[in-house]
Amino acid sequence: MRKLKRLLVTGAAGIIARQIREGLSEFAETVRLSDMRDMGDAAPHEELVECDITDSEAVEELVAGCDAILHFGAISVEDRADIIHRTNIEGTYHLYEAARKKHARRILFASSNHVIGFHPRESRLTASSPIRPDGNYGVSKAYGEALARLYWDKYEIETLIVRIGSCFPRPRDRRMMATWMSKDDMLRLIGRMVDVPRLGCPIVYGVSDNAEKWWDNSETAYLGWEPQDSSEQFRDLFKDAPRENPNDPSVVRQGGVFASAGHFED
Amino acid sequence: MRKLKRLLVTGAAGIIARQIREGLSEFAETVRLSDMRDMGDAAPHEELVECDITDSEAVEELVAGCDAILHFGAISVEDRADIIHRTNIEGTYHLYEAARKKHARRILFASSNHVIGFHPRESRLTASSPIRPDGNYGVSKAYGEALARLYWDKYEIETLIVRIGSCFPRPRDRRMMATWMSKDDMLRLIGRMVDVPRLGCPIVYGVSDNAEKWWDNSETAYLGWEPQDSSEQFRDLFKDAPRENPNDPSVVRQGGVFASAGHFED
Amino acid sequence: MRKLKRLLVTGAAGIIARQIREGLSEFAETVRLSDMRDMGDAAPHEELVECDITDSEAVEELVAGCDAILHFGAISVEDRADIIHRTNIEGTYHLYEAARKKHARRILFASSNHVIGFHPRESRLTASSPIRPDGNYGVSKAYGEALARLYWDKYEIETLIVRIGSCFPRPRDRRMMATWMSKDDMLRLIGRMVDVPRLGCPIVYGVSDNAEKWWDNSETAYLGWEPQDSSEQFRDLFKDAPRENPNDPSVVRQGGVFASAGHFED
Amino acid sequence: MRKLKRLLVTGAAGIIARQIREGLSEFAETVRLSDMRDMGDAAPHEELVECDITDSEAVEELVAGCDAILHFGAISVEDRADIIHRTNIEGTYHLYEAARKKHARRILFASSNHVIGFHPRESRLTASSPIRPDGNYGVSKAYGEALARLYWDKYEIETLIVRIGSCFPRPRDRRMMATWMSKDDMLRLIGRMVDVPRLGCPIVYGVSDNAEKWWDNSETAYLGWEPQDSSEQFRDLFKDAPRENPNDPSVVRQGGVFASAGHFED
Amino acid sequence: MRKLKRLLVTGAAGIIARQIREGLSEFAETVRLSDMRDMGDAAPHEELVECDITDSEAVEELVAGCDAILHFGAISVEDRADIIHRTNIEGTYHLYEAARKKHARRILFASSNHVIGFHPRESRLTASSPIRPDGNYGVSKAYGEALARLYWDKYEIETLIVRIGSCFPRPRDRRMMATWMSKDDMLRLIGRMVDVPRLGCPIVYGVSDNAEKWWDNSETAYLGWEPQDSSEQFRDLFKDAPRENPNDPSVVRQGGVFASAGHFED
Amino acid sequence: MRKLKRLLVTGAAGIIARQIREGLSEFAETVRLSDMRDMGDAAPHEELVECDITDSEAVEELVAGCDAILHFGAISVEDRADIIHRTNIEGTYHLYEAARKKHARRILFASSNHVIGFHPRESRLTASSPIRPDGNYGVSKAYGEALARLYWDKYEIETLIVRIGSCFPRPRDRRMMATWMSKDDMLRLIGRMVDVPRLGCPIVYGVSDNAEKWWDNSETAYLGWEPQDSSEQFRDLFKDAPRENPNDPSVVRQGGVFASAGHFED
Repeated sequence: MRKLKRLLVTGAAGIIARQIREGLSEFAETVRLSDMRDMGDAAPHEELVECDITDSEAVEELVAGCDAILHFGAISVEDRADIIHRTNIEGTYHLYEAARKKHARRILFASSNHVIGFHPRESRLTASSPIRPDGNYGVSKAYGEALARLYWDKYEIETLIVRIGSCFPRPRDRRMMATWMSKDDMLRLIGRMVDVPRLGCPIVYGVSDNAEKWWDNSETAYLGWEPQDSSEQFRDLFKDAPRENPNDPSVVRQGGVFASAGHFED
Repeated sequence: MRKLKRLLVTGAAGIIARQIREGLSEFAETVRLSDMRDMGDAAPHEELVECDITDSEAVEELVAGCDAILHFGAISVEDRADIIHRTNIEGTYHLYEAARKKHARRILFASSNHVIGFHPRESRLTASSPIRPDGNYGVSKAYGEALARLYWDKYEIETLIVRIGSCFPRPRDRRMMATWMSKDDMLRLIGRMVDVPRLGCPIVYGVSDNAEKWWDNSETAYLGWEPQDSSEQFRDLFKDAPRENPNDPSVVRQGGVFASAGHFED
Repeated sequence: MRKLKRLLVTGAAGIIARQIREGLSEFAETVRLSDMRDMGDAAPHEELVECDITDSEAVEELVAGCDAILHFGAISVEDRADIIHRTNIEGTYHLYEAARKKHARRILFASSNHVIGFHPRESRLTASSPIRPDGNYGVSKAYGEALARLYWDKYEIETLIVRIGSCFPRPRDRRMMATWMSKDDMLRLIGRMVDVPRLGCPIVYGVSDNAEKWWDNSETAYLGWEPQDSSEQFRDLFKDAPRENPNDPSVVRQGGVFASAGHFED
Repeated sequence: MRKLKRLLVTGAAGIIARQIREGLSEFAETVRLSDMRDMGDAAPHEELVECDITDSEAVEELVAGCDAILHFGAISVEDRADIIHRTNIEGTYHLYEAARKKHARRILFASSNHVIGFHPRESRLTASSPIRPDGNYGVSKAYGEALARLYWDKYEIETLIVRIGSCFPRPRDRRMMATWMSKDDMLRLIGRMVDVPRLGCPIVYGVSDNAEKWWDNSETAYLGWEPQDSSEQFRDLFKDAPRENPNDPSVVRQGGVFASAGHFED
Repeated sequence: MRKLKRLLVTGAAGIIARQIREGLSEFAETVRLSDMRDMGDAAPHEELVECDITDSEAVEELVAGCDAILHFGAISVEDRADIIHRTNIEGTYHLYEAARKKHARRILFASSNHVIGFHPRESRLTASSPIRPDGNYGVSKAYGEALARLYWDKYEIETLIVRIGSCFPRPRDRRMMATWMSKDDMLRLIGRMVDVPRLGCPIVYGVSDNAEKWWDNSETAYLGWEPQDSSEQFRDLFKDAPRENPNDPSVVRQGGVFASAGHFED
Repeated sequence: MRKLKRLLVTGAAGIIARQIREGLSEFAETVRLSDMRDMGDAAPHEELVECDITDSEAVEELVAGCDAILHFGAISVEDRADIIHRTNIEGTYHLYEAARKKHARRILFASSNHVIGFHPRESRLTASSPIRPDGNYGVSKAYGEALARLYWDKYEIETLIVRIGSCFPRPRDRRMMATWMSKDDMLRLIGRMVDVPRLGCPIVYGVSDNAEKWWDNSETAYLGWEPQDSSEQFRDLFKDAPRENPNDPSVVRQGGVFASAGHFED
């Protein structure tokens, strides 16, 4: 695969970007990392840029010269709407505007399973299933998905929308046996995004090849992404866990405790 | 049908609310009208309240005491994102929060066909079709639809999401032969929203019974809404119109000129 | 349409058969009516036969000489399982066996909306929707539908399976605005069953052309049945009815109080 | 509606064209009629051109100067393959090539229900149902449909593919109660083809608004075609017809006797 | 996985239960086995209880103290309706009533491919495909599936409905290359039923990972069941078998000889 | 698997037949090879027959005595319509007529991905997707598919319709990473065609188990065909290829350069 000239990563100090950072050298000659938090030291192929995503001019400058963007920069937990709107709505808008003006052609938008978190666990979802967000966070990601689609239809900017499950080193609770995504499968997916001749604007569920499956990516099999890991290796972690109540809302819904949690008051 | 105690209408000075205002007396003992623009004189059953939807405390006060809300208050044309976000995203969020806190249980959310405006005209759309917004305006309405769904799933606030076509006294261009909605059909739809025992959170395309049909409301036929008007009565308006180019983007796409228009620079 | 030689009606003293009885003379030279209850006096074209549907030999005799059968004979309310099984399962089995042995070729099986009564009201159902019975009665009708399908696939006996909504002179409660079926529409349906060159084994929802629609019969439009009546004429009956709670189980579910009722203990 | 400059009709001496000929003056200033058989006298707005559709040069000349074409010229009954191929395959190919070279932009292709004639009558078909031709004739029309789609995808020539049922003055047998199409409904459909801003390449079942429906045109409702006639007015024609055997292949299949007929030997 | 306290197995002397009996110790501290036939000697973790499933009081006693039930107790071949109804309908009803009264929360209902046995072999079936039973046996299993769904919707008793293919040590005929299910895959499925946080009431086709596939379990992939065996290991068993006639009813239909067999006279 | 007596291969000198020729001895006692071009020397189990497929009598003689046919004989590139029609339409018709008259019961028809070549690459296609041919060649294959279906529905001749992707020793360009089919997977597919008790008339996409997937064969999983090879082994062949433009028509469409090529003038 031809390497990109320069790949931008927003939210570079976050939990996902930290896991995959090392592996990105395979995809680009230069990796530009951006965050407001400490990002450690730069490797020879890396550029570190401190940038506030809510500052539209700074974002434009950040994007200039990049072929592609991994947009992980967001509030990634449930929070007050004003906080989430500022970063996830205004920030994402700035990023797409910058891509349009500075001719970045391909973006990975880190969406979330919380866009569809109110679906019951026995529902099999595809990219076409109706959205059912489970909180302010999920609604903000629905905004981002709509924006990405607009920039594809109107401005030919391709986006890989990834509804990420749980991208951690290992599952943290029983629910993540279904939602876990390994860092290596995330890297494989990024590889396909970089390499595929035509990306378009697909919605992909970001999840490893776990035995318990809620989501069906067959509609986007043209990408050639075949996850290789599975949460089954971690099944014993939960063998002594107390039996859950099947009618507890956080067990009924795919979003887990996001769906059963109350409102974050402003 | 049992009348509501008090029905709130936001955006009461707008083009749709002005057409239906007189007819609302059938549905509620008191109609509370709100806008920042002049609303004329109040009828005996009306209350006029000037309110800025971007002011969360004012909105909370506005909603207090209302059983149901017709939320037409929005920027309804394509515009700069900052302007649209302020009213359509922040404003709509304030409205739903006010409904949650003040126990308004039923809302009509004035969404728009521009949420799906990039679909080609030969696509038959249902409530389940993927969204394809045709501009900042359409994206902001996608946000509102997602929010409405959240407040139903989590807080039991019912919303009738209406993707309004073109609610004018008569079609203004050839495209509106397909998208036109009469004020009487809008009133009939509001009547069903008020009367139906269980509303849920349906997505309905707001369009009269025109001969040219892009949208299929059969999934929500439980509402009992049967539009009675048709744009066919206006066909002669366009009989001398020049023949359109079938491959012009504004003819290809359901959103018309919204889809072919360029970006509104901030 | 060619009249049948002899049309058998079981459950002839029941609420549906009593409404349509007069109209059946249009379809058959002789109408054989059967029940264990009093059926009044026979018209010149009628034969009255007292018969216990749970007596297989009596049923065989009853069916002999009939071209077609309207099988309304059943326990039509929720009851103890042993009672329902005896009439609705054993009785229906005897009827189909009699049809097989005595060469009756076409049957109307009076199934019920209670076969699918646990679906929420905002679900649009077709003949292919999964069954979700709402009590012993509904389960017994699911048995009958399965049996009818077997006798079509294996023995070429055609059945019109009618999932009857509420076939009364007028709607008895607000829910029946959606489920009401007029006697004339039932007669029109029977007319199509008698006349159509090939019936097969369709599942049809037995409901008039009401404005509030839960069920979609388009899959069986080859029958040519077009109901002409609507419950809208009765809307005023419920105008002073108290507003229902949209989350009350009997309002959530299509089966109404059948779905919220407890178990009938044996 | 703006009239076309010149509308070409092939197969002008055939049963369909003869019925609609008079009505075509509404759609075009000049109607050019073509056939190898006698076409009678020309009205003032008509041009009569004798043309053999299997002669590619003659067809090119025929098409020159026409904005739109109604292509009815075909062998319309089952026949030997060599005869059908010559007219329906070679001839149709010449017509599309002529349209491409001479810039005719819009075509009505008279396809047939015999493209799907092996589907059972209880199947509800849409434009997306798999083809199941019932003879050489049906296969040749499948070729034409494929060709029309190619010329739309590659050359922007729009075609209204009409799978015509039975376009006669009245139904000729019991089956035509389902398949009958009135000449006025055909004319209404041609009107939509001429008027619609964007036609694309839809497949429409050509059938009136009969009570017995096998085919569902809702996917193409964007055309605005609403048939107004119904075969019900002719029901009495068949009231003394002998009862048909539901398992006779010509009753089982939509194509009727086409489906049960043997092969036409070359 | 947390072991169950006590797991009940009905039909413990039958062909399936005998194969899996040894493996059940992994899932429960105590396995209670029940049948009317000889069950051999009890292992230390086993309880043997002779019980007639048609005796409702005995069944209630049998179920008391059990967390979960594997309900294999049934007539599993085609037979006279009275025999099948007594065990498969009355018996299954008693079992569900006992579960309701004695608070057993999770059941495996051994349904059968003969519920859908009249579908042709080239049909790809899912849990949502219409039922098409191929005999009295299949109809009785359709009853059981309907009952299980009722007890989930109304009483929160979860059932894993398994439409078992052919659970034998090896395929017995060519058809079983498609329908074979290994005992180990059955045990894996039971493991998922015991372990999954929320079971609901899914319909699963009980079949190994054979190359020839008629049934699609992807709708229920949330269970995490991934069969590991395949009938391909047995392909040579049939290499000298005579070529079958593709239009023989027992080859056309999924149910095999069940579909082509005549009626079992009472 | 029982060997066939005699298997006919048309187009035996073509690129696909040459690759699989050696492997065919596994399926038939005698392999009859036919072409107009040089076929080399016959192996002991082979018969070489020179035959012009456009000569109906010669084809009839060729087919006599064969149980099954692999029909690869066709113009397999885009060309002038007259050339393609002669071989692919007339020739295929002769072949099916010969099969009907000489009682060959099972045919593999080498169709092509160019029948659906105008679908965009991000469309997931099944056997039921609408055809969208990308040239004269694709249209001729649509004819063949329609003919095959007719001969199954009317004459019980079974056809395996294979929409072959790119059956070459290795992918020749980046697009073939998605469309490549190995000769061994083709042989496995032929093995299933020969062995399966009931073939019917399925449409199968002929493609190996590549990572990039455009086509979904799950509807025909009853065949038991499981491709074992993958184009991933060849990925490095394209690692230095220039990056393609995602909006180039030959990249947008599945048919590649067939879709972007102009017309082959007669």
